[in-house]
Amino acid sequence: MPSSWGKIFRVSTYGESHGTSVGVVVDGVPAGLPFPEEEIQKDLTRRRPGQNDLTTPRDEKDRMVVESGVFQGKTTGSPILMKVNNQNTIGSDYDEMAHVFRPSHADYTYSEKYGHRAHVGGGRSSVRETIGRVAAAGLARVILERELGISTVGWVDSIGSIDSNISELEYPLSRDIVDNFPTRCPKQSANDEMEVLIRKLRDEGDSVGGVVKIAVRNLPPGLGDPVYDKLDADLAKAILSISACKGFEVGSGFSGTRQTGRVHNDEFYIEAGTGKVKTRTNNSGGIQGGISNGMDLILRAAFKPTSTIKLEQKTINDKKEETILKAKGRHDACVLPRAVPIVEAVVNLVLVDAYLYQRALQPKWFLKYANLDSIPEQ
Amino acid sequence: MPSSWGKIFRVSTYGESHGTSVGVVVDGVPAGLPFPEEEIQKDLTRRRPGQNDLTTPRDEKDRMVVESGVFQGKTTGSPILMKVNNQNTIGSDYDEMAHVFRPSHADYTYSEKYGHRAHVGGGRSSVRETIGRVAAAGLARVILERELGISTVGWVDSIGSIDSNISELEYPLSRDIVDNFPTRCPKQSANDEMEVLIRKLRDEGDSVGGVVKIAVRNLPPGLGDPVYDKLDADLAKAILSISACKGFEVGSGFSGTRQTGRVHNDEFYIEAGTGKVKTRTNNSGGIQGGISNGMDLILRAAFKPTSTIKLEQKTINDKKEETILKAKGRHDACVLPRAVPIVEAVVNLVLVDAYLYQRALQPKWFLKYANLDSIPEQ
Amino acid sequence: MPSSWGKIFRVSTYGESHGTSVGVVVDGVPAGLPFPEEEIQKDLTRRRPGQNDLTTPRDEKDRMVVESGVFQGKTTGSPILMKVNNQNTIGSDYDEMAHVFRPSHADYTYSEKYGHRAHVGGGRSSVRETIGRVAAAGLARVILERELGISTVGWVDSIGSIDSNISELEYPLSRDIVDNFPTRCPKQSANDEMEVLIRKLRDEGDSVGGVVKIAVRNLPPGLGDPVYDKLDADLAKAILSISACKGFEVGSGFSGTRQTGRVHNDEFYIEAGTGKVKTRTNNSGGIQGGISNGMDLILRAAFKPTSTIKLEQKTINDKKEETILKAKGRHDACVLPRAVPIVEAVVNLVLVDAYLYQRALQPKWFLKYANLDSIPEQ
Amino acid sequence: MPSSWGKIFRVSTYGESHGTSVGVVVDGVPAGLPFPEEEIQKDLTRRRPGQNDLTTPRDEKDRMVVESGVFQGKTTGSPILMKVNNQNTIGSDYDEMAHVFRPSHADYTYSEKYGHRAHVGGGRSSVRETIGRVAAAGLARVILERELGISTVGWVDSIGSIDSNISELEYPLSRDIVDNFPTRCPKQSANDEMEVLIRKLRDEGDSVGGVVKIAVRNLPPGLGDPVYDKLDADLAKAILSISACKGFEVGSGFSGTRQTGRVHNDEFYIEAGTGKVKTRTNNSGGIQGGISNGMDLILRAAFKPTSTIKLEQKTINDKKEETILKAKGRHDACVLPRAVPIVEAVVNLVLVDAYLYQRALQPKWFLKYANLDSIPEQ
Repeated sequence: MPSSWGKIFRVSTYGESHGTSVGVVVDGVPAGLPFPEEEIQKDLTRRRPGQNDLTTPRDEKDRMVVESGVFQGKTTGSPILMKVNNQNTIGSDYDEMAHVFRPSHADYTYSEKYGHRAHVGGGRSSVRETIGRVAAAGLARVILERELGISTVGWVDSIGSIDSNISELEYPLSRDIVDNFPTRCPKQSANDEMEVLIRKLRDEGDSVGGVVKIAVRNLPPGLGDPVYDKLDADLAKAILSISACKGFEVGSGFSGTRQTGRVHNDEFYIEAGTGKVKTRTNNSGGIQGGISNGMDLILRAAFKPTSTIKLEQKTINDKKEETILKAKGRHDACVLPRAVPIVEAVVNLVLVDAYLYQRALQPKWFLKYANLDSIPEQ
Repeated sequence: MPSSWGKIFRVSTYGESHGTSVGVVVDGVPAGLPFPEEEIQKDLTRRRPGQNDLTTPRDEKDRMVVESGVFQGKTTGSPILMKVNNQNTIGSDYDEMAHVFRPSHADYTYSEKYGHRAHVGGGRSSVRETIGRVAAAGLARVILERELGISTVGWVDSIGSIDSNISELEYPLSRDIVDNFPTRCPKQSANDEMEVLIRKLRDEGDSVGGVVKIAVRNLPPGLGDPVYDKLDADLAKAILSISACKGFEVGSGFSGTRQTGRVHNDEFYIEAGTGKVKTRTNNSGGIQGGISNGMDLILRAAFKPTSTIKLEQKTINDKKEETILKAKGRHDACVLPRAVPIVEAVVNLVLVDAYLYQRALQPKWFLKYANLDSIPEQ
Repeated sequence: MPSSWGKIFRVSTYGESHGTSVGVVVDGVPAGLPFPEEEIQKDLTRRRPGQNDLTTPRDEKDRMVVESGVFQGKTTGSPILMKVNNQNTIGSDYDEMAHVFRPSHADYTYSEKYGHRAHVGGGRSSVRETIGRVAAAGLARVILERELGISTVGWVDSIGSIDSNISELEYPLSRDIVDNFPTRCPKQSANDEMEVLIRKLRDEGDSVGGVVKIAVRNLPPGLGDPVYDKLDADLAKAILSISACKGFEVGSGFSGTRQTGRVHNDEFYIEAGTGKVKTRTNNSGGIQGGISNGMDLILRAAFKPTSTIKLEQKTINDKKEETILKAKGRHDACVLPRAVPIVEAVVNLVLVDAYLYQRALQPKWFLKYANLDSIPEQ
Repeated sequence: MPSSWGKIFRVSTYGESHGTSVGVVVDGVPAGLPFPEEEIQKDLTRRRPGQNDLTTPRDEKDRMVVESGVFQGKTTGSPILMKVNNQNTIGSDYDEMAHVFRPSHADYTYSEKYGHRAHVGGGRSSVRETIGRVAAAGLARVILERELGISTVGWVDSIGSIDSNISELEYPLSRDIVDNFPTRCPKQSANDEMEVLIRKLRDEGDSVGGVVKIAVRNLPPGLGDPVYDKLDADLAKAILSISACKGFEVGSGFSGTRQTGRVHNDEFYIEAGTGKVKTRTNNSGGIQGGISNGMDLILRAAFKPTSTIKLEQKTINDKKEETILKAKGRHDACVLPRAVPIVEAVVNLVLVDAYLYQRALQPKWFLKYANLDSIPEQ
């Protein structure tokens, strides 16, 4: 369904930018888990705007409320409703856009699809919709960390033409490291260049795109399913479902298409000491045949420049007349820093669902890989 | 579900490379449609190997059999089973691979996931699985053509480092044009270079990757749904679900991330004469906010080099010992030419499902865009 | 999924008896519909307790709040969150039941399933869960009425051994008629007897079961799908999903099993004047082969006596020791009057989903049966 | 989807009475299970007609073929296609029914739903569709027996007005006991009366209905889910999805509605010796709050008289003219004996899916109740 995700850990989001609230119902949560309210709030806080002067100054606090599915601090197995109330209802900034379609925005397509649209704040296409996903993913993250030791870390790999050139050995090991950099590009030189670029474009009323990179560590082999539910296929869908995303790569991605098999193939070996199966290179990005192979999962997601800019643009209105638009209001000149926790979130939603599905069908796999002490007693 | 696709036009494939048959059950097909058996067979024939000396010499004919859901030449509304019997059961070529994991192949991950695996012919990870999808998609294609006038054409955009450099104005208008070229790259010079490269690598026992590009024309605005079922998100999942695919782009994709909003935004205008809404550029690739905007849908899919090569490679066996593999058997040195109809197929599966879902919810949209004469009488 | 219903009109409820709120997210609602807030509130009010002295004195008002999916009085096509805040948080009445399992209640099974449970107010097994379904169904009802002219009316057919003996000719034509009777049994003599019985059992601390009957009028032929999604199969599931329901019949039900085919078969004829296809009897209850045939849809649902009674009962506690329970608190001696709007609600949820699915696949059927003037313009 | 069942153990059937084949694709089967081909064939043989002179003389052997998902005698985790080829293609018997609608059959409703229909052999509404379900359920049965020790036994409880009056203590303990009786009513006196009645009605060209009863033993507590996926709700849907079924009861069913809570409630106690939780009565039929409670699961399913009879009946044709029909061909005068294995089958499909879903979410429950030795090694 359009607003739902998952076979078992079933996430359904609701809410528009400037309605009463935005949130999520998660059905299919194991019972007896200590509910990680603080961890979820931390993830929501990382997502929200207004954290530094690079992002929109709309500081909404985004304080989560839980209305069901938790009792005496533990999950009950019933659907969990998590929501954030909208505080800062936008007014006149959107008036001029009530009848004018922003170029490259969802205004026109929503209008054609539904016959009418909620123009205020972008309606359902607003990035505030991701609050529900980030909240659900906070819960997913904690399950993955506790039960399998999985960690997901994302960062900004490039903005505009500024490449971070972070090598595999430099991949950041934690989200805290990434959060030390206002752009979430964890390389000082690149970060500094990016800050200058974003401020410059913001002042001009323009915007710019970029790429988010993700590394998932300690993933056991065996997650993901053949054919349609390949792990990378589900990740691609989840990541492309984020507004402004226009591309997805796993492992060597597009650049790997230029190689020969001899160079590209990841040779297996047995790691001395641990006896673990490893590959010498990781062009596969941790996935072979749609299933995790135990190496780090490496993804890249392309985000286009923000479409709402303050420069004059030619466009049309809802009477199908040509006109000129110069947008007002608060809009990020670059979504990349804020995209990082959102990409991490959808990755965790994919992983937790693949994990629960795998343990439904292959329980001996579960006994082999999961930390049984972390599983609630029956 | 792992082997199923679609909310309404529900496709479930089954079958392994060297079992009795491979095929598909399609549930959710409108009743009363003339069943396009020849068109479907045509699509299957385009997919099969052995069409020229660039692809594997396994000529299986791939003759489709329909076992249900059609009566007196029309669909009945019941599930349609389409299948192709496997004729050419492989023998000893796979013996040596029974216990050895091919680098970058699905051998190891299937083994870890399921505890054992069908090593012969790659089992479920074989590209023969796509027969079911191509058959289902043939039916989807005819529905889209008849009822909305949509056409989907794919081609090879690059192989290895050889870029076709086909400009937007040169995009091929039909599948027949593409099929004139053995590599399915519809630019003579690039095609010729690619042929040389593929033959050379084949003779060396090596392989190479490449990129498929897709253009969908005459798509009405309004297809695709917000959040998870965005048209591009569903397309990304469908395309990444094809074996060996490592990347996906819509519109400007990764290159668009380097632009500013001013350059990247697609300005709307009213086309003189027709009065139609158009955009001057198409960096969006025909999709805005996850919904088609009426411009051509433009996609790119990255395929890595075939992992099964005849060169010696270091690897491990299923006792977790290091060993050497030199694969035998018939394997494409480059899957790109054969990937074209498979990518087209999954695109059509996504589109037909988005179409049926949209007409369930917005019937006045249907009355506006569909060719009512093509709809079966009740 | 456990808390979700529907292929297209997708209903997901959340909430427990004494959490913050109970409600529903509906995804898959056509855009552009005038949102029938008052009609939905009317349905919620019919469901709530405390309407007369036969039901529990917990008068919660049940005022609905809409938090998304509606803009300027119309549906937007986005998920609609409807909820009711819980006002009357129960305290000590449930303390004694924290560790004791009520006989025939869900206490023990929830505990075994999840390892622990929310004992207060029954948690997810509380009848307050139905608020979400009734709200969603109010929207479904209005769509069915406007677009197809369908009306669904339910009533109490029997309580304990008191049969209403309402013949087919006496079936009530509207919900208002039914609501004139405190027991919702629209036959004065039976209603009066039932009132006496319920008061007597309530005073004794005992309870009693009964049967709800439903008639759906003006249903076009063609709704429902073969095999698993037969209209009666979906209705059976929806009705059995209501707490305390132990049986379901369509048409002649169990009594029809005693007849011969000659007597039981419903002969077709052409109605003079209208030319409509009718059957002389309606033992089929309006459904043949799982698909509506245009006659009235007739259902019966069996509800057991309320399990929470104030009499002393032998039982066990959560240490698996035998003990004695004498329940306190507010509990209906008979759920039947309040079950009527809940059964109607789930029937309408089934029907609206069958309708949207049918119009996705057979649009000429839609053009034949639907009132096009009621469909929002695109 | 119409022809699919299950959240994890996903069953999709296809096929019509007189097409090429009927069968099923099962996706979501654990890998590494010894494939129980003989057990499945045994179940198919119990289902097929022509086993004695009470059922239709169409002896089709129903020999199952497996075309995918099994390798070297074990399941691979890939979809399993099981099918039976149709041998005995019907000819002229159905000619007269090409344009005439049989009363109380699916002829008319299919025609209205789809605009046309496959009249030969009833098309998709044929009982041959159940072959796929019985095959899938054979696999489900073996999983439930091996891993949880569950056994499902069904029998004929009544035919027409002949009640078996089999008390709870006399419930048959195995399917073999039931199969000793041609009517599958395991009480000699009732069986003999039923045989006489069926032969008499068959000779008259008439038919009769009846009731199937099911007992499931050794079900652990905790299967089934709140709200829509209650175990009894899923069972009701599965059973009503069988052709000719018009009613469903769990436990006390309709008769329980006449009792008071004091009488109806099942008091818990601790069984001496075993320390197990039991109830003194079992009016709940093994399910409380939609979840199994560890007592025997007791169900009843009502089947109407076969609608295709050889007596003259008034009806209409597809030109909407009144006419007379006297059916030819081979039709059971009573489906009850053959309905028994079909009802058992759908019960097992429901149970196996509830089991896999429960073990996905509550793995410690799995470790408590499942026989780990029967689980395939990873």
